[in-house]
Order: sequence, then C-alpha cells, then structure tokens
Amino acid sequence: MDPKLGRMASSLLALLLLLEGGMFSSSPPPPHSGLLERLFQHIDLHQDEFVQTLKEWVAIESDSIQPVPHFRQELFRMMTMAADKLRGLGARVDSVDLGSQQLPDGQSLPIPPILLAELGNDPRKPTVCFYGHLDVQPAQQEDGWRTDPYTLTEVDGKLYGRGATDNKGPVLAWIHAVRAFGDLEQDLPVNIKFILEGMEEAGSVALEELVEREKDRFFSSVDYIVISDNLWISQKKPALTYGTRGNSYFMVEVKCRDQDFHSGTFGGILNEPMADLVALLGSLVDSSGHILVPGIYDQVSPLTEEEKRLYEAIDLDLEEYRNNSQVEKFLFDTKEEILMHLWRYPSLSIHGIEGAFDEAGAKTVIPGRVTGKFSIRLVPHMNVSVVEKQVTQHLEAIFSKRNSSNQMAVSMPIGLHPWIANINDTQYLAAKRAIRTVFGIEPDMIQDGSTIPIAKIFQDIIQKSVMMLPLGAVDDGEHSQNEKINRWNYIEGIKLFAAFFLEIAKLH
Amino acid sequence: MDPKLGRMASSLLALLLLLEGGMFSSSPPPPHSGLLERLFQHIDLHQDEFVQTLKEWVAIESDSIQPVPHFRQELFRMMTMAADKLRGLGARVDSVDLGSQQLPDGQSLPIPPILLAELGNDPRKPTVCFYGHLDVQPAQQEDGWRTDPYTLTEVDGKLYGRGATDNKGPVLAWIHAVRAFGDLEQDLPVNIKFILEGMEEAGSVALEELVEREKDRFFSSVDYIVISDNLWISQKKPALTYGTRGNSYFMVEVKCRDQDFHSGTFGGILNEPMADLVALLGSLVDSSGHILVPGIYDQVSPLTEEEKRLYEAIDLDLEEYRNNSQVEKFLFDTKEEILMHLWRYPSLSIHGIEGAFDEAGAKTVIPGRVTGKFSIRLVPHMNVSVVEKQVTQHLEAIFSKRNSSNQMAVSMPIGLHPWIANINDTQYLAAKRAIRTVFGIEPDMIQDGSTIPIAKIFQDIIQKSVMMLPLGAVDDGEHSQNEKINRWNYIEGIKLFAAFFLEIAKLH
Repeated sequence: MDPKLGRMASSLLALLLLLEGGMFSSSPPPPHSGLLERLFQHIDLHQDEFVQTLKEWVAIESDSIQPVPHFRQELFRMMTMAADKLRGLGARVDSVDLGSQQLPDGQSLPIPPILLAELGNDPRKPTVCFYGHLDVQPAQQEDGWRTDPYTLTEVDGKLYGRGATDNKGPVLAWIHAVRAFGDLEQDLPVNIKFILEGMEEAGSVALEELVEREKDRFFSSVDYIVISDNLWISQKKPALTYGTRGNSYFMVEVKCRDQDFHSGTFGGILNEPMADLVALLGSLVDSSGHILVPGIYDQVSPLTEEEKRLYEAIDLDLEEYRNNSQVEKFLFDTKEEILMHLWRYPSLSIHGIEGAFDEAGAKTVIPGRVTGKFSIRLVPHMNVSVVEKQVTQHLEAIFSKRNSSNQMAVSMPIGLHPWIANINDTQYLAAKRAIRTVFGIEPDMIQDGSTIPIAKIFQDIIQKSVMMLPLGAVDDGEHSQNEKINRWNYIEGIKLFAAFFLEIAKLH
Repeated sequence: MDPKLGRMASSLLALLLLLEGGMFSSSPPPPHSGLLERLFQHIDLHQDEFVQTLKEWVAIESDSIQPVPHFRQELFRMMTMAADKLRGLGARVDSVDLGSQQLPDGQSLPIPPILLAELGNDPRKPTVCFYGHLDVQPAQQEDGWRTDPYTLTEVDGKLYGRGATDNKGPVLAWIHAVRAFGDLEQDLPVNIKFILEGMEEAGSVALEELVEREKDRFFSSVDYIVISDNLWISQKKPALTYGTRGNSYFMVEVKCRDQDFHSGTFGGILNEPMADLVALLGSLVDSSGHILVPGIYDQVSPLTEEEKRLYEAIDLDLEEYRNNSQVEKFLFDTKEEILMHLWRYPSLSIHGIEGAFDEAGAKTVIPGRVTGKFSIRLVPHMNVSVVEKQVTQHLEAIFSKRNSSNQMAVSMPIGLHPWIANINDTQYLAAKRAIRTVFGIEPDMIQDGSTIPIAKIFQDIIQKSVMMLPLGAVDDGEHSQNEKINRWNYIEGIKLFAAFFLEIAKLH
C-alpha cells in the first residue's frame, strides 16, 4: 500500500471509530472523542516534523558498545539534546551524573547521565513513568547498510537509520504525544515521568543502582511504568508484552591438569576431561527439547484456559516465520506450541566449550581443562536459586557415576528472574483500549523469550505495574543492518500513546 | 654423577666388555673387538670436536614452521652445510630441488632440498639407509629458555639448544660414526645411504612423493632403514622402537542453518545442533576409556606371551612418570597396563568443537552449525578404511535415533596406518647386540603411542625393514623450551651406531 494512502486510511479509520462508536469492537466508544479527533489530526498534520526530529536524533552516533571517546562524546550530546527536548515540554529535568566506568583494559570512560524528568504532579491524576534509552548498537555502512546508518532515510514509507526503532523512535513518539496536548492547549490527563538512559546496549551500566536510590524519591509517586523497547510479532498487528523469560547461565569445568596433552602420548590412559564434559552436557536435555534435570519443571506455572485463548488469538504466519528463520523444521508444528515453548516453558541451550580445540583444521590435543557453558531460560514461577541447586546436584550425580579422577566445578555466573505482568492490570486494559481506538483491533498478547532485565528490575524495586508497549513491526531489524521504523508505526505510535494517556486517566 | 667421570666409566665399561667377553650379558663377545676398542677410544678422544660440530649446526635457525624468508634461507644454508659434511665423508650427494610451496595466504616459499647421499656400493655388504631431518621447531629465548636456543650451551653434561636432540644430534652421531672408520683408515662394513630432509616439523612436505619416485633407483639397493628421531622412555636405559600407532581423525558436522541463533528468541523450539553433537560425541567412549563403536576392537591383534614379557622388562618408574605428567591418577595402575594402552590398544580422544561459543565469558548463543573433532589412535591390525566405515555407521545410527531435523555429515580428513616392525628382523638383533656392547644392558623394547608417518611410508613404499633407534633420554624435551641432548647420550650414540655397522654386517 502506498504509505500516504495508508496514513489517510488509518486516519479515516480512527475518525470512523470515533464517530461510529467502535465498528470493529464491542467496547464502548472511546472517551474524549472530540479531543482524540483533534489530537490525531494534529499528529497527522505534523508528521513530517516528527520524522525530522527523529532524523536529528538518529544523526547522533550514540553508540554505547564501542568504548572510544568519540562515541562517549556523542552519547553526552544525545543526552543533552534529549534533556533540552524534555525541558521544551515544560518538564523539570534532572541529569544524573554517574561518574565513570573502568574498562577491563584499564581505560576509564565517563558514563552518560541518566535523565529523570517530570511533568505535572496533580495528585488526582495517575503518574505514568516512561523508560527509554538513547544509545544504539554499532553501525557502519560497510557492514551492509544500503543507506548511511546515521542519516535517517525514507524509502517506501520505511525510515532507515540506526536507533530508528531501538529506541529513539519510541522515545520521541512518547515526547510528541505529550507535546500534542500542549500544542492543542489541553491539560495532560496524566502526570508524566521519564527515565532515559544512554547505556542500555552496554548492559544498563549504573541503572539499577539509580532506580534503587530513587525508589522513595523520584519513583515514589509513580503508578505505572511503560517500556517501549521491543517489537510486535507481526508486521501489521500491534502487540502488548506481558512477560519475559529469565536466564540461569551455568559453567561446568572439568579439569585433569592445566596444560593440554598430546593424544599420541597420553591417549588411552586418562580420564579425558572432554569425555567427562560431553557426558555431563549430554545429560541435560533430550532430543525433543525436554530438560532432564530432575525437578526442573516442578515450579513451572500450569497452563490456564485464559492463557490458552491468548495464544490462539495471536496472529502468526507459521510458514512465513519458518522461512524468515531459515529453519527447515521446528520441534513443534502448531503456532500455539511454538509460542508456548518460546515464552512460557523453560528451555536449555548448550552454548559451547572453552578450553577445547575450537579452530579449523585437525589438532590432536587432549584438552587438560575444559568449561562447558549452557543456560536455562526461566519462566514463572521458577526460582533462580532452586534451579541452581537442581542443576548442580544433577551434574554432581552424573559426574559421580562416571568415577572419574578429574575435578568438576559448577558455577552460575548469571541468574536473572523471569518477569510476568498481570494482563488485567489497569494499564494493560487502558493500552488495549487505546490500541482498539487507533488500530481498530485487539492486540496480540505476547511475551518475549529473551531476558529483558529492566522490566524485572522496575517491578522488583518500585513494585508497581510494568508494561511493555511496543511500537515497531517484527521486521524492524533492531541490532541489524538496515534497522528501520515504518513511518506508519511511528506516527500511529504517537497517537497510541496519546490515546493511552486518556484511557489510563479514565480507568485509574 | 660428574659427566667426565661418567664418560670415563662408560669407556671403561666398553673396554671391560671387550676384554672380558660380555660380563653383563650371556651373548658372545662382540665382533671386531680390536677395531671396536679403537673406534670407541677415537670417539672419546674427539668428543669435544663432535660437540663443536653440533654447536655449529644448532647455530643455524632452521625453523620450518614459521613461513618467513629468513628461516627458509637458514634452512637452505643448513642443507648446504649438511651436504658439504656428507661430501667430506666421501659420499656422493644429490641435493634434490623440490620447487616451492603455496601457503594458504597466497605466499610462495621455496622448499629446502632433500639430500640423497650414498657412500659405498659393495654388493657383498648390506646397505643401511639413515633418515634424519635438519629443521627444527620455533624457539625464542623469551619463551622460557634459560640459554639462547641457537647457542649450544653445556650445563652439567647437558647440551642445551634447539634441535640438539630433535634431530641434529642423532644425524651428526651417524655421520661421526661413519667418519670414525675413515679416520682410522678402516673399511666401512656397510654401504651407507642418507635421506635428510628440512621440512619434517612442517609435515615432511614433498618427502613421500620423492621416496615414491626414487623407490626403484636410490632405494632399490637399500636393505635396512634406520630412523633416530624419537626418545627412550628412561633417562638412562636405551630403547629400540618397533611400532607407532596410526590415527583416524574424524569430523562430524551437525547443521541447522549457517547463522547462529539467539537462545532467547529460539530456545525451546529447535533441535539444537549442540545437543545433537554432544549426544554423538558422548556415544563414542565410556568413562573407562573403552571405545563404544561396534566392531572397533575386532581387528586388534591379540596379546602374545612374548609381547607380555617385553612389557614386563621395560624400565618405567610409575611414580616418577605420574609426577612428571602432573596427572593424579591414570585409568590403570600397573606399568604393563599403562604402556599397553598407550601403545598396543586403540584410544579415542575428543579434541573439541568448531563453531560453538569458545571464548571466556557468557554468550547466549545457539550455534547454528557445529563440528565435533575426535580421533582414534590405531594399532595393528586395524585398518583405516574399516575404522572409517565403523565410525560413520555408528554415528549415523546414533543420529538417526534422535530423529533430529538437522543435517549430519561425517568425514575422516586424516587416516594414517599404524606401523609395526618384526623385532626379530636382522637389524633389530644387530641393534640389540650393539646396545649390549655399548651400554651393557638389554634395551627397552618400546612403541610410540603417537603417529610417526615416515616409518610407515618407508615400510610401505620401499618394503624393507624399518627400525627406530633413538639416542636421546626421556627428558630431552623435544619441541619444548630448553631442549637438550646429554653429552653422554650423544657420544655413546656415536659408538652405538659404529657398533651397529659392525653387527649388521656380521648378521646380514
């Protein structure tokens, strides 16, 4: 569809919904119909201006991965530009200095500030805090970009540029939504807070400490936290994300001695560490993907009828998914089974072995000390400590049966809890209504098989409802070459946030 | 023991043996007693000169591993110096030009010539061909050498220097032994041939082709081939080597797709290649070292009583061996079991995995394509082709049971046959007698668990008896820092070769 036609159709659709009281759904007509109509018109009228702002932000090479002064300077410039933009909204902005980080090579680099901003503190209104990040993954045109990654370029309604969808576009969408109320001289129906960081791609350095520190200050009045840092699982159908898996990462070392052996000189008389390790790793999961660690499924929450229906409603073209994945055959044949095994059941992956021969060619080495690495994606209500104990005991039992003279050591350097939200929380209901208003359909209720620690951190520390409300389409290619956000997703996303403010104010 | 005293004692011992007709053994008195005595005296008298020649040879940085012009020039200089030395003996020397080799990086480097030399062609005498190599492993003082690796340095009777024991010392010992006859104006009891190469450490580039080409010319008159390119298994007791294990090196690839996956995004719905591979590798060998591939032991030659006695006679201090190996516990407790499992039984070692995560740290990757590498050390009368078929069928059966949607491919890029000699061959008997004469004891009859393709190549192509007659002690550290040959081993080695010439002439 021609993008311009698409935009017209979408605006028309919203108008129809407003005028006719929800032709596509059985819900009551949206509130503030007159205001919404004016907001949407205003947003459509100013869309080129919104694209221009995104272009300015994308132009800043705010790469947090490559630890070189140039990119750090760009990150600081990015945070300053964002702070100015927030002040332009009328927000009070606190740019929190986080000192510097020591890199493994001894180098010290300054950490870009985290912005804490607030706009409005009317105790009768709910307070919604938006989390976003302004740093990006590295990008160079020679990596395979068809356009300069730091020059936002529109082709067929797609806005190509590093950070366009991850996460500059969504942050700006929120800002533009807030701005639209001001431009129309309308009172914002919610109090708004922002927490914007510049180190997300590098592991959110210093974020958790700041959230902990500000728990009873900046965050004390927050009712809802919204994150818009993931994607739909469709190209056209919006989604709401209510859970992410956790992760327990294990290392199991088997050691005979520190040095390697020559297989001619020692092959035949040793308990070879690789034989032990391969047996240990081979005891973890069967060929159907079932994890063999005793008790590991005990705490997995049972599947409810309500949950089943959520999965059935999801829009996923299996054939297309398989083609895009370049996988000939999955372990499961139905959409429901596949999604459940990605989102609501644990999985175990063996990542590799450190210390063995890993290069091309043939080397006749008996590795003296090897470390196997695997991890288990955790789901509610698995507990990191329980899983650690179960896995350790299982490996010890397997190793003990081998009667090997080697030494085995198990460790779990990473243990991240799963996150799950109550989809009947007020803000989920408000977001669903807003989606119905803007897009005319029910969203896919999705989870993410990956681990996004930030949601769990907010939930645990602030103890308020956290929602992930993505704007981008499944093919946006975050972290990849030719990252993009569709103009349609960006502009409709601004409308979605504006509609959400009105809905959450009404439902709160 | 003071090395000078040691040398005197050794000469005295030889003298006693000559005079008293073998006090230490029941064998008949050595032949040519008067000549032997004079040879041994001559060798003892000229030992400093022999050490000086070794010093000159060690000073040449004839490193064949590092593909840089400097080392190639040194190799050519080394081969020229050796050719001159052989001509000095009166030998006819053919320096065979082998052209150049193309390296993987596109660079072309000249291959040092192989020297084919002959001295004497009396049809009444046996013709003994000596194989040796004059290239060395890389060495730099900063790698941990206590002395400059290319300056032969004597400390406590040990001659430290790269190539001292591997293989310049033994090559010179043979040359000095031949020379001793000339110096004493004695007719050599054997016709001598030499084949000396300069690329052994780099895989004997072009050697096999040359041997094949010269099979019916240079090698047609050869009766015996002697290699002196390995070590005793004791510090003091000489050895004769009659076998080396072969090697079948396998690669088993399991592929889902070329790219890796993220374990958050795909964990739970894939037949993960690592799970398949770990199961395949885990099916190969049990924790007692027993190979689980069906039929693999069918062709292993049964243990004879004669063989058992050879093992019982071997001088091996198990406690010392274990300490030197830094291994707490071997799979077996007796000297005989340990040596048999290193030499006369096959072993299977898993070397590593290519394509999986192998670095330090934690990465949540699902490798898309992985290749496991393992090899089986082969013993008589296992056959490379049969083993290839057995292993492939076994892996296919295991993989098929998993019902995985991945693709598996098995290949055997290296297949080297084991080598075994008849220890009752004439030259083994001659060497035993020579050892008795020089050292006053019976040698350890040993094999080598490693694969030394050259012995098998000579045996297969020339179809004559091949013997490995080492001079160096177990602690010489070939390929290591601080490589050395003991002055005692070097000088007694010259005597051993001289005595061997007389014995083989007598027994032939």
